Amino acid sequence: MTCLYPGTFDPITNGHLDVVRRALKIFDKIIIAIAKSDHKKPYYNLEKRKKLVELATKDISNVKIITFDNLLVDLAKEFKINTVIRGLRAVSDFEYELQIGYANHALWDEIETIYLMPSLKHAFISSSIVRSIVTHGGDVSSLVPKEILPFLKDKTCM
Amino acid sequence: MTCLYPGTFDPITNGHLDVVRRALKIFDKIIIAIAKSDHKKPYYNLEKRKKLVELATKDISNVKIITFDNLLVDLAKEFKINTVIRGLRAVSDFEYELQIGYANHALWDEIETIYLMPSLKHAFISSSIVRSIVTHGGDVSSLVPKEILPFLKDKTCM
Amino acid sequence: MTCLYPGTFDPITNGHLDVVRRALKIFDKIIIAIAKSDHKKPYYNLEKRKKLVELATKDISNVKIITFDNLLVDLAKEFKINTVIRGLRAVSDFEYELQIGYANHALWDEIETIYLMPSLKHAFISSSIVRSIVTHGGDVSSLVPKEILPFLKDKTCM
Amino acid sequence: MTCLYPGTFDPITNGHLDVVRRALKIFDKIIIAIAKSDHKKPYYNLEKRKKLVELATKDISNVKIITFDNLLVDLAKEFKINTVIRGLRAVSDFEYELQIGYANHALWDEIETIYLMPSLKHAFISSSIVRSIVTHGGDVSSLVPKEILPFLKDKTCM
Amino acid sequence: MTCLYPGTFDPITNGHLDVVRRALKIFDKIIIAIAKSDHKKPYYNLEKRKKLVELATKDISNVKIITFDNLLVDLAKEFKINTVIRGLRAVSDFEYELQIGYANHALWDEIETIYLMPSLKHAFISSSIVRSIVTHGGDVSSLVPKEILPFLKDKTCM
Amino acid sequence: MTCLYPGTFDPITNGHLDVVRRALKIFDKIIIAIAKSDHKKPYYNLEKRKKLVELATKDISNVKIITFDNLLVDLAKEFKINTVIRGLRAVSDFEYELQIGYANHALWDEIETIYLMPSLKHAFISSSIVRSIVTHGGDVSSLVPKEILPFLKDKTCM
Repeated sequence: MTCLYPGTFDPITNGHLDVVRRALKIFDKIIIAIAKSDHKKPYYNLEKRKKLVELATKDISNVKIITFDNLLVDLAKEFKINTVIRGLRAVSDFEYELQIGYANHALWDEIETIYLMPSLKHAFISSSIVRSIVTHGGDVSSLVPKEILPFLKDKTCM
Repeated sequence: MTCLYPGTFDPITNGHLDVVRRALKIFDKIIIAIAKSDHKKPYYNLEKRKKLVELATKDISNVKIITFDNLLVDLAKEFKINTVIRGLRAVSDFEYELQIGYANHALWDEIETIYLMPSLKHAFISSSIVRSIVTHGGDVSSLVPKEILPFLKDKTCM
Repeated sequence: MTCLYPGTFDPITNGHLDVVRRALKIFDKIIIAIAKSDHKKPYYNLEKRKKLVELATKDISNVKIITFDNLLVDLAKEFKINTVIRGLRAVSDFEYELQIGYANHALWDEIETIYLMPSLKHAFISSSIVRSIVTHGGDVSSLVPKEILPFLKDKTCM
Repeated sequence: MTCLYPGTFDPITNGHLDVVRRALKIFDKIIIAIAKSDHKKPYYNLEKRKKLVELATKDISNVKIITFDNLLVDLAKEFKINTVIRGLRAVSDFEYELQIGYANHALWDEIETIYLMPSLKHAFISSSIVRSIVTHGGDVSSLVPKEILPFLKDKTCM
Repeated sequence: MTCLYPGTFDPITNGHLDVVRRALKIFDKIIIAIAKSDHKKPYYNLEKRKKLVELATKDISNVKIITFDNLLVDLAKEFKINTVIRGLRAVSDFEYELQIGYANHALWDEIETIYLMPSLKHAFISSSIVRSIVTHGGDVSSLVPKEILPFLKDKTCM
Repeated sequence: MTCLYPGTFDPITNGHLDVVRRALKIFDKIIIAIAKSDHKKPYYNLEKRKKLVELATKDISNVKIITFDNLLVDLAKEFKINTVIRGLRAVSDFEYELQIGYANHALWDEIETIYLMPSLKHAFISSSIVRSIVTHGGDVSSLVPKEILPFLKDKTCM
C-alpha cells in the first residue's frame, strides 16, 4: 500500500524524516508531496525544497518525491491513493490537522488521513524554528538531516 | 433584543449562516458587522464581502448588514447594543475569543459576549479553508451558501 | 425569554452568580437546574446545594431554582425551554461543554446552548477549589456569595 | 498487516465502529483488544463488553476480539504486532494519547501508534456520554450500533 | 532563596527529580512538600511516599522533605516561603496549574508560583503511568529513580 | 542572580511589567532583552520599543535594557546568564513557549527557562491587542504603563 505525505518541507527536518521512517513500517511506499504553498511565502523556493528532500531521503528505499500546486484531494485522486499521513506534534497542530482532515473528507469521502507522532526527541522540531536558527547563524545540526546542512545558508541557489 | 455579530466574513460560510440562524432563535434581530480588517489583508474587498453576506442572508428576516472600521466597543455604543455574539469552533478560537472578550470588557464594561457553537456538520468550516479551496479551483458548494458560489472565483469585482 | 442554567452547584460560587447576573441582561428569566449527579458523588447533598443556591440568589429577581435527575433535554422539553446557558472558563471546560452540547443536540435538535464567559476576576473559581479550601479550613470569602459562607463547613445539615 | 485496537469499550459506540471500518481500509486485520481496566471501575463487566463488541462487529470481516489485563506492549509482543491504532476526538484525548504513546514506546521501541480521526458525525460520541444517557433512560440509538441497543439497560447480565 | 515544591509524589518519578535538579540551579534550597491528598486516594500511603522521595533525593544537597495536610498557602506562610515551583508537562497540566495558582494568589497575594519544564525525555512521565505499569508488572526502570525501584511492587509496607 | 527576559515588547504592556515586578522577587536583577524581530514586522521600530521599555521601567531598580538580533542562546552565553524568564498567558502561548524552550535547550543545554503567570487582571493583555486598539483610536490606559501612553499614537518617532 502507498501513502501520501504532503507538506511544505521548508526545509525538511529530522522530525519529517522520522515520520517517513515510521510510516514505512506500515506502508510499502511513500510519496512525499511538497506543496508549492505560495500563500505561505516559503523561505526556500520549491525547487530547492525538493532538492533538500531528495538529499535527505536518498538512502531510504520506497520514497518518491513530487511537488504539487493543486488541492491535496485532487493530487490523491490523480495518484489513486487515498491514505494521507501527517505528523502530529502539538495541540495546535492537532486542531489544524483535524480541520484540514475534515475539509478534505468533505471534498472526497474516500480520503483517509492517519496521524503519526514523531519520536519524543523530535517532538519540538519545526521548520520555522530551523529557519529562525539558520537566519541567525545558529547551529541546526541536531535538527535537520546532515546531508542538507551545507545548503541551508543560501536561501535560493543549490 | 438586538445583537451584534462582528467578523471579517472573508467570505461568509455555512458556518456563519448557521450561527445567524441559531442566534435568531434567541434574539429579535441581528446586525452583521463586517470589519474592514485591513491588517489581515482580506482576500475579498470590503464591498464584495458585504455583497456576499447580503446575498447569503437575503431570505432571512431581521438581519441588518453593516461595515465598520472602528473598535467593536465603539460600534456597539453607537448602535446602543451591548450583546455581541460569536461562533466557537476550536480550542484556538476559544482562547483568542476569550482574550478579545476580556479586552472589550476592559474598554466598556457594559458589553456582553455570548458564544454559540455551530452545528457539528459546520464545525470544521473556516473562511480560510474556503479561500484555499477556491484559489486551487476546488468545489466549495458544501461549505458556502449556494447564492454566493458564482462570485467566489473573482477576488474583487462583483 | 427563559433560559435553563444546569449544573451541579457543589457549591454555588461567585463565578456561577456572575453567569446568572450576566444572563439576566439577555434573558427575562433563568431557571437554575441543580443536577442530582450521584455519579459525581457530590460533596454537599442535593437538598443542601439547593438551599445554598436559594440563599445566594435571594436578592436576584426572575430566578427559579429546581433540582433534576433526568436528562437535560428531557428537563428542557418538560419546561418547554430550548435555550441552555453555560459558563466557560478554560479550554478543558470548553471541550467537555462542546461534547455535551453536541450530545444534547443529537437527543433533541431544538435545544440551543449558549456560552457566557465569567468576569476575569471569577475566571479561576471552581466548586472543586472551593471544596478543597473548605476542607482544609481555609477562607473562601472571596470565592463564594457571603450568604452561604456560614453553611459550608458542615457537609450535610442546614 | 494486522493492527491492534485497544480500549475499554464501555460500551462500544458508533465512533469506535467507525475507527474499525476506516482502519480496515489500511490494515488487513484488526484485533480489538478490550482492556479489563478494573481501576476505571467499568460500568459493564468485561464479559458483557466483549459480547457487545462481538454483536456490533459481527458483519465486519477480519476482526478478532480479545480481552487483556496486562500491559499493552506485552500484549503486542505476545501477538507479534507492533502497530496500534487509536481514535482521536478532542484535544484532551490527544494529550493523553501522546503521553500513553510515548510511555509505550519507552517500554518497547518497536511499537508504533497511529491515530485515526472519526467521521465528523461521530466526533462527539464517547462511551461515558452513552452511559450517562442510558442511566437516565434516554435514547442512544444514534450513538451506538443498533445490535447492542437492547442490551444496554441491564448493566451486568447478557 | 528557598522554594517550595508541593505535590502528591505518588510515587516520585524521574520527571520530579529533574524539576528538583533544575530548580536547584536557581534556588539555594528546595523543600519538597508531599501532600496527604486523601481525596485523591493515593496508591502509596503518605509515609511510603515520603520514604521514596528520601531515597530518590539522598544524593542531592539542599533538599528538605516534609509532608502536609493543610492549604499550600498556610504551609508557605508557616515556612515563610513565598515561592512555589511546579513542573509543567502538558496543556491540561497548564490549565489546572493556572487555576490553582490564581486560587493560591487569592488566598495570599504574596505567594508566587513559577513553572519549570522538564527535560524532553521526561516530558511524558507521570506518576499515574508509573502506577499503571507497576500494577501490570511492567518495567519502570527508565521512568523512576533506581533507588526506589525495589519498593514499588508493595503498595504499603517499606 | 540575574535573569534574562526576552521579547519583542511591541509595545511593553502592564502584563510585561507585572512579570518584571514578580521576577524581581526571585532574582536580583533582570535584563530585558528586546528582540529586533524583523520577520515579525514590528509595529514600532526597535529604537522606539527600547525607549518605551525604558520609560515604563524607569522607577524599577535592577533592570537593564538591551536589544539583540542574534539567537537567544548566544545572547545568554555572551552575558553568562543561563536563566530565562517568560510570561505565560494562554494555552497557545504555552505550546509555543515549550517548543522554543526545547529548541533553546538543544542549542545550549545549560539554559533554563522558567515561566511566570501574570496577575489575573493582566492575563488577557497582549501587545497585539494594544496595537489594535491604538490604531483604531481607542483608549489603552488600563493596558499599558501610563508613562508610555503619550507616545503610542505615533508609530516611529519619539
